[in-house]
Amino acid sequence: MTIGTNTDIYTRRESQARSYCRAFPVTFSKAQNATLTDSDGRSYTDFLAGCSSLNYGHNDPDMKEALIAHLAADGVTHGLDMHTNAKAEFLEAFERIILKPRDMDYKFMFTGPTGTNAVEAAMKLARKTTGRDTIIAFTNGFHGMTMGALAATGNAGKRAGAGTTLGGVVRMPYEGAMDGVDSLAMIRAMLDNPSSGIDAPAAFLIEPVQGEGGLNAASGAFLKGLQDLARKHGALIIMDDIQAGIGRTGPFFSFEGMGIKPDLIPLAKSLSGMGLPFAGLLIRPDLDIWKPAEHNGTFRGNNHAFVTARVALEKFWSDDSFQRQTEAKAAYLTERLQGIAAMVPGSKLKGRGMMQGIDVGSGDMAAEVCATCFEHGLIIETSGAHDEVVKVLAPLTIPQEQLASGLDILEAAVKAQGASHQIAAE
Amino acid sequence: MTIGTNTDIYTRRESQARSYCRAFPVTFSKAQNATLTDSDGRSYTDFLAGCSSLNYGHNDPDMKEALIAHLAADGVTHGLDMHTNAKAEFLEAFERIILKPRDMDYKFMFTGPTGTNAVEAAMKLARKTTGRDTIIAFTNGFHGMTMGALAATGNAGKRAGAGTTLGGVVRMPYEGAMDGVDSLAMIRAMLDNPSSGIDAPAAFLIEPVQGEGGLNAASGAFLKGLQDLARKHGALIIMDDIQAGIGRTGPFFSFEGMGIKPDLIPLAKSLSGMGLPFAGLLIRPDLDIWKPAEHNGTFRGNNHAFVTARVALEKFWSDDSFQRQTEAKAAYLTERLQGIAAMVPGSKLKGRGMMQGIDVGSGDMAAEVCATCFEHGLIIETSGAHDEVVKVLAPLTIPQEQLASGLDILEAAVKAQGASHQIAAE
Amino acid sequence: MTIGTNTDIYTRRESQARSYCRAFPVTFSKAQNATLTDSDGRSYTDFLAGCSSLNYGHNDPDMKEALIAHLAADGVTHGLDMHTNAKAEFLEAFERIILKPRDMDYKFMFTGPTGTNAVEAAMKLARKTTGRDTIIAFTNGFHGMTMGALAATGNAGKRAGAGTTLGGVVRMPYEGAMDGVDSLAMIRAMLDNPSSGIDAPAAFLIEPVQGEGGLNAASGAFLKGLQDLARKHGALIIMDDIQAGIGRTGPFFSFEGMGIKPDLIPLAKSLSGMGLPFAGLLIRPDLDIWKPAEHNGTFRGNNHAFVTARVALEKFWSDDSFQRQTEAKAAYLTERLQGIAAMVPGSKLKGRGMMQGIDVGSGDMAAEVCATCFEHGLIIETSGAHDEVVKVLAPLTIPQEQLASGLDILEAAVKAQGASHQIAAE
Amino acid sequence: MTIGTNTDIYTRRESQARSYCRAFPVTFSKAQNATLTDSDGRSYTDFLAGCSSLNYGHNDPDMKEALIAHLAADGVTHGLDMHTNAKAEFLEAFERIILKPRDMDYKFMFTGPTGTNAVEAAMKLARKTTGRDTIIAFTNGFHGMTMGALAATGNAGKRAGAGTTLGGVVRMPYEGAMDGVDSLAMIRAMLDNPSSGIDAPAAFLIEPVQGEGGLNAASGAFLKGLQDLARKHGALIIMDDIQAGIGRTGPFFSFEGMGIKPDLIPLAKSLSGMGLPFAGLLIRPDLDIWKPAEHNGTFRGNNHAFVTARVALEKFWSDDSFQRQTEAKAAYLTERLQGIAAMVPGSKLKGRGMMQGIDVGSGDMAAEVCATCFEHGLIIETSGAHDEVVKVLAPLTIPQEQLASGLDILEAAVKAQGASHQIAAE
Repeated sequence: MTIGTNTDIYTRRESQARSYCRAFPVTFSKAQNATLTDSDGRSYTDFLAGCSSLNYGHNDPDMKEALIAHLAADGVTHGLDMHTNAKAEFLEAFERIILKPRDMDYKFMFTGPTGTNAVEAAMKLARKTTGRDTIIAFTNGFHGMTMGALAATGNAGKRAGAGTTLGGVVRMPYEGAMDGVDSLAMIRAMLDNPSSGIDAPAAFLIEPVQGEGGLNAASGAFLKGLQDLARKHGALIIMDDIQAGIGRTGPFFSFEGMGIKPDLIPLAKSLSGMGLPFAGLLIRPDLDIWKPAEHNGTFRGNNHAFVTARVALEKFWSDDSFQRQTEAKAAYLTERLQGIAAMVPGSKLKGRGMMQGIDVGSGDMAAEVCATCFEHGLIIETSGAHDEVVKVLAPLTIPQEQLASGLDILEAAVKAQGASHQIAAE
Repeated sequence: MTIGTNTDIYTRRESQARSYCRAFPVTFSKAQNATLTDSDGRSYTDFLAGCSSLNYGHNDPDMKEALIAHLAADGVTHGLDMHTNAKAEFLEAFERIILKPRDMDYKFMFTGPTGTNAVEAAMKLARKTTGRDTIIAFTNGFHGMTMGALAATGNAGKRAGAGTTLGGVVRMPYEGAMDGVDSLAMIRAMLDNPSSGIDAPAAFLIEPVQGEGGLNAASGAFLKGLQDLARKHGALIIMDDIQAGIGRTGPFFSFEGMGIKPDLIPLAKSLSGMGLPFAGLLIRPDLDIWKPAEHNGTFRGNNHAFVTARVALEKFWSDDSFQRQTEAKAAYLTERLQGIAAMVPGSKLKGRGMMQGIDVGSGDMAAEVCATCFEHGLIIETSGAHDEVVKVLAPLTIPQEQLASGLDILEAAVKAQGASHQIAAE
Repeated sequence: MTIGTNTDIYTRRESQARSYCRAFPVTFSKAQNATLTDSDGRSYTDFLAGCSSLNYGHNDPDMKEALIAHLAADGVTHGLDMHTNAKAEFLEAFERIILKPRDMDYKFMFTGPTGTNAVEAAMKLARKTTGRDTIIAFTNGFHGMTMGALAATGNAGKRAGAGTTLGGVVRMPYEGAMDGVDSLAMIRAMLDNPSSGIDAPAAFLIEPVQGEGGLNAASGAFLKGLQDLARKHGALIIMDDIQAGIGRTGPFFSFEGMGIKPDLIPLAKSLSGMGLPFAGLLIRPDLDIWKPAEHNGTFRGNNHAFVTARVALEKFWSDDSFQRQTEAKAAYLTERLQGIAAMVPGSKLKGRGMMQGIDVGSGDMAAEVCATCFEHGLIIETSGAHDEVVKVLAPLTIPQEQLASGLDILEAAVKAQGASHQIAAE
Repeated sequence: MTIGTNTDIYTRRESQARSYCRAFPVTFSKAQNATLTDSDGRSYTDFLAGCSSLNYGHNDPDMKEALIAHLAADGVTHGLDMHTNAKAEFLEAFERIILKPRDMDYKFMFTGPTGTNAVEAAMKLARKTTGRDTIIAFTNGFHGMTMGALAATGNAGKRAGAGTTLGGVVRMPYEGAMDGVDSLAMIRAMLDNPSSGIDAPAAFLIEPVQGEGGLNAASGAFLKGLQDLARKHGALIIMDDIQAGIGRTGPFFSFEGMGIKPDLIPLAKSLSGMGLPFAGLLIRPDLDIWKPAEHNGTFRGNNHAFVTARVALEKFWSDDSFQRQTEAKAAYLTERLQGIAAMVPGSKLKGRGMMQGIDVGSGDMAAEVCATCFEHGLIIETSGAHDEVVKVLAPLTIPQEQLASGLDILEAAVKAQGASHQIAAE
């Protein structure tokens, strides 16, 4: 099969909704850790990593081996929400490796297999347990495409997809969203004023780092203040750690060490370890008032994902070495990005951990940088309200040299931009 | 690992929302075609088939082989919506084997990987293209658990999970839902009356056979009449073929041969062939007005599912032999169920194709029948507003003898019920 | 001032929303009982009566005298919700003359001064006391133009005025709305089916006779059955007696003698007796859980209306003679309308009491009949989903001869229609 | 009739929703200009003025005379929306005296007779003309009690009356609502950010001075900036001048001289001049896209109000002397209130024109001040989110000496508070 053929079939049969393939119009055939290979045998370094769904890289050999073994043994593939070995082993590993060492006591809810299902389950449970309707979400937040989660998503383009007005969500500025405005103080003032018109909220729904919204990273002080405010007003904290969690910022949860105890934690993306569809909701045990089957779904029992997720936990989280490696890479990333940002007047470093990028000030420039990178074998994307942030989301497992060479490509692309702009200005 | 350990971990760590595992409290270790095996080595015939997600049975050897080969070759696992070999091959197979022979012209939208994502995408697109808000859904309809799809789901228990009032959906009686009421005439009267208070609808959202709602099967006349009414009033038909499609009633689509051309067709469940999370939306080409990324999602590129789905299409749908086999089994099923129904005064045969069951008149009796079946090695579940329908959803690939022996168990369980009721009455 | 001037000013300065003046394009200067006089001195018999706001006719001399006396004495005009003599006297008269003799125990809530305010207050209170959202309203119902009441109004044209989708209301067929459908049985089936998708309602909101919707009159059996169903499902009955009440059908309340005890009764239109803005909500005492000022409004204390309303109660309702006179006129009206209806093949008599009319089968014909009547000095309007009902809403106080002569004009207009149609057909 | 009787009837028969009568538990019998007289003959100075519905005082002799003459001549009382002399004369006076001299070109829409009807009509038309749903309203805003207007009202107590969640409105801080936050900059940032989650608004709905919300007065710069922002984003400005308009701040409209051209202006309260129920909506002519009867209502033709409103316009607005008198009184009021505020540490002067008051820092203290005033013959009320503002809303026509003596009572009451607090503290 040639690329040409492939492209034709998409034009002919795939919906216009498709997007990434437009920026990277080749056919990918193979993938290993941080490297994608196209059908012509060309290799690309992956700084997109499935939008943080591939924190452990593509096709981790241990996960792959375990999955092949499971398949070969006719292990259960689709298990609804029935008991299976793979499920029990995942749950036990999650309890032993993740929850216990962090002194976290949560119930695990297997929602539908993608992030938006976990967010919807969280929103439903927050409303159900509090008897309130309003969810407070934040500027630039991204939570999913189904009606409930979409109402909490800020992006106007995505919202327009609904074809109708989205309700039940009140919007507040994220930390730092408004120059000169103390967002937390403003939210507090709105909630403390009985005539503000803001109804008592069921929950705050927030990402510790806004991946799609432009790599805005909330401080521990902000999140802690929000948690205090939530407690005061009888509201829950839904900490959407779908993109920032599972090690992306260093620790397993992105909010570790901040003194935060979220009430509900939606997880997805890298949860399966291998990029398989898998999402879950961590629930403070006393809030787990679901009746049996009150929230169900066909693919809650993706046992392939249970197998690889369990391997991922055992392999990467049994001690703190993976976290330390990530933090070291993140420090290197910060250093390199600072150097690159220094080349673009007015640009800003954004994000935290292995979820950093550069706000280059315009979506056009960011797009050009990414296009140039792709020409040189680097897959990298933008984020932000104006797509103005060039975002590095490399697999956490990327070899140091590949991380460096990828950043070299990025640096050259930014430099070329500067040169071409200077030329244009002359 | 012992069963005891497994059960403890669920009690300790899984949300109360879990359900099927309560009725079948064993740990399943292996699965092959229509047979599940528990950790003690006991075998069960599967008349549930992942709620119609396993129409080709568990772990089909050809799909399994193809998936292992894909894994071994480091084929792309998670591909966002980028071009991959597996995706192109799936799309081409779908076009060649499904669309062309049926003279169907649709775009394929890769929504999130579960049915509710496809339904939400359909509802959004219907509203967006028509500029209208109201979706007309039907009594006993089941469409998913996210806010948009849940609004269209009839079940009060599921709706209560929302914790808030669900809007945007108007409810009409499904064919036969009201004794003595011609549902279609009633819907027509409501839409034709400009003071009825029913706003011009964006779409009708309907299942050709209501799987969860009690195996209610709409006639071709009803669906055709609905389509005519939709055309007259500028509304779309969203034909939710998630549970009834992919061969469950015989043909690939459950509405084949009825003269129906739905505008939007959500698919999921058995689409991947192997029970992997995969959903899609077929879109009438002129309605495909999505902007790039207007509806996105992390797991739209589950390449494992593309691989197995393609194998499934090639293996089962390249000619009509599979459909004929299914129809033959369905005829046998009808015959056996008629015999069983005759044993329960007032009971009724429900459904169509390999999606049939018996309304035994009470949820308690249906639950007892299912529990007795499970004791004898048959996994079978109920459906309906009062869980009053014992539902046979065996894999279409089930060997004839196993279908027969499973029905023997069911027959015996129903007979035992009759006996015990008679005894109780004496 | 000439008429010309007047008409100009409307074209120049009044919103396009104006309507009745388009059908009756003269300037009215005086009004006494059932007679309106225009600025040219021409007299018209009023079969519209302010859409049932002038049940006692225009400018009743006793009400007028009392109001002039109140004005002359500098009685309070605008009293917010403070205690005034006029208010106390109205409340005492209402208790003594209306509530006590009927053994009705209700609290009186002074809502804003027009019907929609009373309906909104009722909807709010029904939701607040039940903790439920859904109000079940009926095909062809008319309840007002503000967002809450408009959601319950059926007319598509009025609904379009909202510019947005109206929520919180589920629509059911009114008695007789669907040929061959037992509306009550259908509603019962929908509420008894836990998977119908109809959420448990806060209330049924219904007009005993639908004035705007086409003079559809519910039977006592239907209303009683609805009340039983409401009790069973924990819902309230809001009996909107705004147009049908205050004597229009004979008794003070249109549902008297049917064994109905509504939970909430919005009143307006003829409540003030003289056409002054005045509305109220009767509340079953245990449902009166409003906090002080929880529902307020500037014009709840229209003392002029209290004065005239009190006079109306004392003058017309101290004994049953007025009701008997109305019933006698209604019998005469029925007889005459039967005669007229007999002249139009396929036409139907609609309504009850002094709220009757003829469905002539088409809005065009009804409009022509009304236009012809106006040419001959009779003000009469249409109602119904297609404006197909010629509606007689004469003041209840209309002299018998004037009623007769008005009906003569109507009869002649209908006859002329028949003649012209016959001619056209020839 | 004794007071005792009166009070009993309210307890027995009036809804708990009643409020002002609780603070002023006497029965008022007469009212003239700024003086109310109770049934025992005691007089009170009225600093409440029907919440600004009696800007020209109670029972203005000229309006009274005109109304008695209209009654005596059997002028039309209730005219639906038909042409009458009284209506034409009102419209012509409004055009000649109000619109033309101010170079304002608006259509007048006769909505239902109270403020909330005018606000609802404005919200509907804004949504209808823009095709958008979201109305941006402000903290502490007050717009009415029907579902649409209530959604825009900030007060939590009022909102709780809905018994359901109110949608379609996004809340922004009013000028000065948040310490250290530039409200206009914040709103601009939210609208300019395409990922803020704030949908493009149909309109801003704002009161130039927030009467109920605590006498917060927006500056011309803020309102002008808002208008510029609205123009930029294709949104309308709905200037709710119901309480602040009709001369309350000096000029006829409270926003005169600020360079503001609102798109829609709801008016009510003092519009009739005499406290009769009357509301209207001024519409920018090109936005007047209503279809005939698209928004209707029973009491749009309250001819008594047309008569008195016309007299009010002719008497008070034919030249600028009334405005100048009001401004002189307002200057005196400012001076006196500054003196009184100086007696309460931390208190603040609020408001503008004859709509000023003192924020005394606590609702308890404000209530005690008002209670003491009432004991000394002054009717005065609080406003604000915590009822912390003692609000002076005297008739604009109040004689200077009576204004002075009323303020003497207020000053003494505040002084007494100070003394008692000092005593309590000692």
